[in-house]
Amino acid sequence: MRQLYHMPISPACRKVRLALTEKNLEFELVEERDWERRREFLMLNPAGEVPVLVEDEAEPICGATPITEYLEETSTDVKLMPSDPHARAEMRRLIDWFDRKFAVEVSDGLIFEKVTRRFLSSAEGGGAPDMVVVRAALHNLRYHLDYICFLMEERNWLAGEEMTLADLTAAAHLSCLDYVGDVPWAQYQGAKDWYVKIKSRPGFRQLLADHVAGMPPPKLYANLDF
Amino acid sequence: MRQLYHMPISPACRKVRLALTEKNLEFELVEERDWERRREFLMLNPAGEVPVLVEDEAEPICGATPITEYLEETSTDVKLMPSDPHARAEMRRLIDWFDRKFAVEVSDGLIFEKVTRRFLSSAEGGGAPDMVVVRAALHNLRYHLDYICFLMEERNWLAGEEMTLADLTAAAHLSCLDYVGDVPWAQYQGAKDWYVKIKSRPGFRQLLADHVAGMPPPKLYANLDF
Repeated sequence: MRQLYHMPISPACRKVRLALTEKNLEFELVEERDWERRREFLMLNPAGEVPVLVEDEAEPICGATPITEYLEETSTDVKLMPSDPHARAEMRRLIDWFDRKFAVEVSDGLIFEKVTRRFLSSAEGGGAPDMVVVRAALHNLRYHLDYICFLMEERNWLAGEEMTLADLTAAAHLSCLDYVGDVPWAQYQGAKDWYVKIKSRPGFRQLLADHVAGMPPPKLYANLDF
Repeated sequence: MRQLYHMPISPACRKVRLALTEKNLEFELVEERDWERRREFLMLNPAGEVPVLVEDEAEPICGATPITEYLEETSTDVKLMPSDPHARAEMRRLIDWFDRKFAVEVSDGLIFEKVTRRFLSSAEGGGAPDMVVVRAALHNLRYHLDYICFLMEERNWLAGEEMTLADLTAAAHLSCLDYVGDVPWAQYQGAKDWYVKIKSRPGFRQLLADHVAGMPPPKLYANLDF
């Protein structure tokens, strides 16, 4: 059985979990606190980061983009990318948007401050969240929710008429923020409608069951009618 | 004729230029100082970042990864990716290594401090480089040169026996640092041997001709025997 080394509140890992489930590929989760730099894990991925996918006998596949491109190339059943190269470029533009721009401006900071710091010693940077970082991230989040609304005025899904890996990427980020309880959905109806649709995909059930020790999710987190 | 919006000392843009030349695709360069957030440029790429590739009539393609994947999908002549999915995953792992890890630990900081700051007003963060950032980046650089040496002990090129987009990615980063004059090649023979090989590729000539106003490159920058 393939194994996915992951952390629960990690957009990169959640994207891979959603992609695996959409493709009906079974997998086992192995939680890996990658900041602990465990020797055996560094042997799998010298970059020392989750996600890492290990399939029987084969070399491990490291990183969300290498894994999702690999899954798309090798699993012929369910496709998560359009076939037209221009449509694929538009999808990859949006994946880049969330994995680089949104990550830097919103999710990396919020998740580090609100989740990761709980697991670190004070020497490692643990402690209470830095509210300056949190407020800046929440401010930036609004522009991105606006952008999702803008895209959804003309499209069924973020990158076009079909659900693609761009939707899974954005949803993976937003589901992490939703756990932290900070997404003002009510003010962004287009973004909310999109999130309701993707939240009802089968892969989401497993994500919504994740619990961080000492940090229960907000009441409406797992609710489809939030 | 296709146009590439770019900045000269940008690893992402240099990777695309190298890929276009390897594939024998003609292009025109348009310099775009993306931090100026020019309105017409934001219409091409709402993320406001170079590189952007514009082909006649078609939608612009935004970002180094969307562009290079698009070129690989549409140009059938010269391939820059292996055909085996596992080998492609290994190549993408190394692309990720340089575009995310190396960028964060080394090139983003060095290029911002030593190049970008020259173009910014003091209100925008312009001025003399912050030597704390520069020194940290140069310290980190050594681990990455070691890693290149390690890979080159077993392989012809970074990702295996053939030159791939992983080599172009790493070379794009290192050529920017080389312009700034900070790569201790002499102490890393394996990395140097690899860089000599890739520096002699035809696409490199054009990169090595780039000059930043007021900041001439070091003497051995364009030299194949450095």
